[in-house]
Amino acid sequence: MIPPNDRGLLLGDGLFETLLALDGQVRHVEAHLDRMAAGCLALGLPPLDRERARGLILAAPGEAGLTSGRAAVRLTLTAGSGGRGLDRPEAPVPVLLASCAAAPPAGAPATAVVATVRRNEGSPASRLKTLAYLDNVLARAEARAAGADEALMLNNRGHLACASAGNLFWLEGDVLATPALGCGVLAGLARGRIMAAAGGLGLTVREVHAGPEALPAASAAFLTNSLTGVRPLVSLDGRILGADPRVAALAAVAG
Amino acid sequence: MIPPNDRGLLLGDGLFETLLALDGQVRHVEAHLDRMAAGCLALGLPPLDRERARGLILAAPGEAGLTSGRAAVRLTLTAGSGGRGLDRPEAPVPVLLASCAAAPPAGAPATAVVATVRRNEGSPASRLKTLAYLDNVLARAEARAAGADEALMLNNRGHLACASAGNLFWLEGDVLATPALGCGVLAGLARGRIMAAAGGLGLTVREVHAGPEALPAASAAFLTNSLTGVRPLVSLDGRILGADPRVAALAAVAG
Repeated sequence: MIPPNDRGLLLGDGLFETLLALDGQVRHVEAHLDRMAAGCLALGLPPLDRERARGLILAAPGEAGLTSGRAAVRLTLTAGSGGRGLDRPEAPVPVLLASCAAAPPAGAPATAVVATVRRNEGSPASRLKTLAYLDNVLARAEARAAGADEALMLNNRGHLACASAGNLFWLEGDVLATPALGCGVLAGLARGRIMAAAGGLGLTVREVHAGPEALPAASAAFLTNSLTGVRPLVSLDGRILGADPRVAALAAVAG
Repeated sequence: MIPPNDRGLLLGDGLFETLLALDGQVRHVEAHLDRMAAGCLALGLPPLDRERARGLILAAPGEAGLTSGRAAVRLTLTAGSGGRGLDRPEAPVPVLLASCAAAPPAGAPATAVVATVRRNEGSPASRLKTLAYLDNVLARAEARAAGADEALMLNNRGHLACASAGNLFWLEGDVLATPALGCGVLAGLARGRIMAAAGGLGLTVREVHAGPEALPAASAAFLTNSLTGVRPLVSLDGRILGADPRVAALAAVAG
């Protein structure tokens, strides 16, 4: 249980990671710890206690009885208890907790809408997985209300940023395009693996600032995250998007 | 204590209000409840249980032993417990909690810097007091690091929005200017009282989209919130701002 004066609860002051576990084995643990450690630095929080975080992550599937099949481990770090108001205490004592739940299947094709809620490219939090995730909650709710699986979020300049829970890519000839981090984008770990592998498939990666009109013009688009890998984007705002066999080839390297 | 699967904790999915109590008497309770009720509607949460919220607010100063002098009551509403991921449960059961702490003094002059972290004018959350308040935490931290009391936040268009914990006004001749809500601004209750009273002091209120260069050009600027009333803004980024006796007259109506 969490005390009611926790700054994660009261102010969204904290970070999280979502990791895939397959048959109880958590994937890419050190990469997730690296990202959370960098997030602590970016937010001005004390250095991540990696050993404790790793222990919580590795124990989570077993404690939840989810040691077969796909499971999702969530590691949450809050800035800990504090006094009234925005200012952190002199020496914050972060709180770490982990949980594990059944994970959705990988690779399911997704329908999407463009959300009205925008990504805040002007905040470092838009490039981190923070506890202040309400904009993503609102974007996802827009998608559900429209009968879609996911929401694409534009930033305040009207450029594509990401999905409510995933990065976005599309193919234009031999170019694999994805929104630049400056658009207000998390450096997703699956995103990084896709970008690293693209060259081997004859693709040139371009990090771009582009509006949503890029997607109907693309030969195919897809979403990535740690839990669900590569999800082909089959439609946007009801308009059918293209399909391309190279998406499956990229999916094979995303895990 | 709060369960670790609370969506307020995990995602910033919720709202809060901060109310002033004077000698145990909480001010403007119904107006704060109105605003939280409107916030629930905006976020798609179940209707606010006003009776329970009111009871928590009114009891908070006594329970904290803060029935003399100035105290700050915080009412927190979370979207309640949920499963994994962004999607809310079918029937969310919000959690309400209240706390009370000593309040800062009213009317203290403030120094400010312009923060680098921007206000997300493209999200409805920028017009609500939500649990996803990390951008404000980061802005305040910038102010403290610069030795200032407060941070002014611009939106992604570069227009003035608000302070990390308060609304912003300035005087230009007989015009009382304040950023328009569309700039990414909470409709502060003290802001509303100031705007309502301005006409009686011979001032015309203008809700504007303006850059920070408006402030050194103003005859005076000030911040408002429920706890600290009207705080004259004495400097911005180290540059001394003007003073104007009409600020004190406005302060008298802000409570």
